[in-house]
Amino acid sequence: MLSIYFFGLCGLVILITLYCWIVKGWCAAVEIIECVPNFSTSDPKVVEQILNEIKRARNVFLLDYTFDDYYSRLVVSFVGDKKSVVEAAVNACAKAAELIDMRKHKGQHPRLGAVDVVPFIPISNVTLEECVELAKEFGEKLAERCSVPVYLYGLAAANATRGDLDWIREGEYEKLGELIVKPGREPDFGPAKFMPKFGAAIVGARKVMAGFNVNIGTADLKVAKKIAKALHGHKGGFANVKAMAAFIPEKNICQIGMSVNDFEKTPLYRVFELLKVECERYNIPIAGSEFCGLAPLKSLIDISAYYLKIDNLTEDRVLEIAVQNAMEKGGAFE
Amino acid sequence: MLSIYFFGLCGLVILITLYCWIVKGWCAAVEIIECVPNFSTSDPKVVEQILNEIKRARNVFLLDYTFDDYYSRLVVSFVGDKKSVVEAAVNACAKAAELIDMRKHKGQHPRLGAVDVVPFIPISNVTLEECVELAKEFGEKLAERCSVPVYLYGLAAANATRGDLDWIREGEYEKLGELIVKPGREPDFGPAKFMPKFGAAIVGARKVMAGFNVNIGTADLKVAKKIAKALHGHKGGFANVKAMAAFIPEKNICQIGMSVNDFEKTPLYRVFELLKVECERYNIPIAGSEFCGLAPLKSLIDISAYYLKIDNLTEDRVLEIAVQNAMEKGGAFE
Repeated sequence: MLSIYFFGLCGLVILITLYCWIVKGWCAAVEIIECVPNFSTSDPKVVEQILNEIKRARNVFLLDYTFDDYYSRLVVSFVGDKKSVVEAAVNACAKAAELIDMRKHKGQHPRLGAVDVVPFIPISNVTLEECVELAKEFGEKLAERCSVPVYLYGLAAANATRGDLDWIREGEYEKLGELIVKPGREPDFGPAKFMPKFGAAIVGARKVMAGFNVNIGTADLKVAKKIAKALHGHKGGFANVKAMAAFIPEKNICQIGMSVNDFEKTPLYRVFELLKVECERYNIPIAGSEFCGLAPLKSLIDISAYYLKIDNLTEDRVLEIAVQNAMEKGGAFE
Repeated sequence: MLSIYFFGLCGLVILITLYCWIVKGWCAAVEIIECVPNFSTSDPKVVEQILNEIKRARNVFLLDYTFDDYYSRLVVSFVGDKKSVVEAAVNACAKAAELIDMRKHKGQHPRLGAVDVVPFIPISNVTLEECVELAKEFGEKLAERCSVPVYLYGLAAANATRGDLDWIREGEYEKLGELIVKPGREPDFGPAKFMPKFGAAIVGARKVMAGFNVNIGTADLKVAKKIAKALHGHKGGFANVKAMAAFIPEKNICQIGMSVNDFEKTPLYRVFELLKVECERYNIPIAGSEFCGLAPLKSLIDISAYYLKIDNLTEDRVLEIAVQNAMEKGGAFE
């Protein structure tokens, strides 16, 4: 009888040890993908229902969301493992397809449909190539589930022309009916026909980017558009920057909305300083700025290092990251 | 026989569930204390042996260390749980007491002994008050183990006068023999007498601070000292700043070395801009700057927010921190 207890105990110890080893090993290599879908709505009730699809998903965490009337656009950020992120994204986008009617949509941000753009972003233990595959998997599922056209953009697209967001969004939703039936302009998934309620979705993979908006002290949208043009890559500005101008009625000023794709090559301080230079030409003051979505740490490091002329600043020399790395490395805190 | 297996299996499931619950609960509330001892040495062999005491400690992680000849000072940063941090700190300081001879020490940084200052800093799930207790425990242990005088500073000290680093370090090591025997100047632990080889140690607890050094384009230490004075809290500068000037022979310029204690109240951009103003008076350019030790994230946020006029920047809106928080909160990634 004693020997049964003894062997039982030994077995238990072995099992727990194995369990710890497996779980710890698995945790250390946990894959994290971020998804940042953009929806064409600023209706709080619609926003809530879309967010609920993400909140109720398993193994998925809602990180951030913002929406405003002048863009009439909801930007959501969430993370999770591959399978869970795709599933949550499909559910959220299907909800958007159900609730948003593009025939009634007005907003200052260029958009092609109810689900305007859905990028998958590698955060840890995932490659950009794997995110390209995820984007394709997601695009196919969304097209099937909702019977809507889906374009692939960026690295997920068949070629560079088709991958360019500006090209895909040419003429926006309003011209989609005319363009979608043209040869070479067929979507990658779903029907090659205009769906008035939904429009079309744009899906892809990219590295972490910085969404950065600067409010400038003028109500003159024409001037603001000139300033945005000076920054926009395709129009002679910075290679990694997309910039647009919008009017903010409640503040009676304009906003330069920017996506800085490779903020390590084109750091935000440089973008900001050029924007200041262009504003000075028209004697327009900078009213303030904001990150649209989350701020990548590296972008803050580059800003700090530039203005304070700091030589030795890297991500692993930031206290919070150093502590996090130490915990992950050793696990000896357990 | 079957029932034995059945009950054994049930027991196993219950035990594993309990284990997971306890371990997860414990991990979530893991206490992290940082210790940043400053040693009066720049001898690479001594540095190595001191670092080894920290590296070989269990449940302790070395985060960072820096040392240079002109200060002749080694600054080490490591983290761990309460017990482990105190143990590693005592071992490292005992090694320093063994290897450093203050009779031969020359350096431009004010110092009282081989182990000049040892602060304990709350990082997570620990209060500042608990760190004060840790500092006292450590001070007592170090005094006992090495038979050396130990002063408590900051919040750990008996009163504000005794807690002031400038007061404790008055006249530095060179005057310690004369001052340590004066009434009211006795150490908090250990013998109230001058130990020529060791000097005295200064121990305390504080919040995270920023060590920030700015190199200025002048070889004139007298002018650099004037600039440092303009910034130093006790001399009319910023309340939370200690500033000193040092000459860096290999670069033939001077450095303003600063400790910014409450960088949320006195953000680094403000310190840097005032330093620039004072330098302009003498036509001295800023050559560059560096964090001495690790950079607290909040300090980078304040710098970025100031120069780019960012409105909505908080720690939890930094991507890396938001992801980390999500992982800790849910544990659903496991």
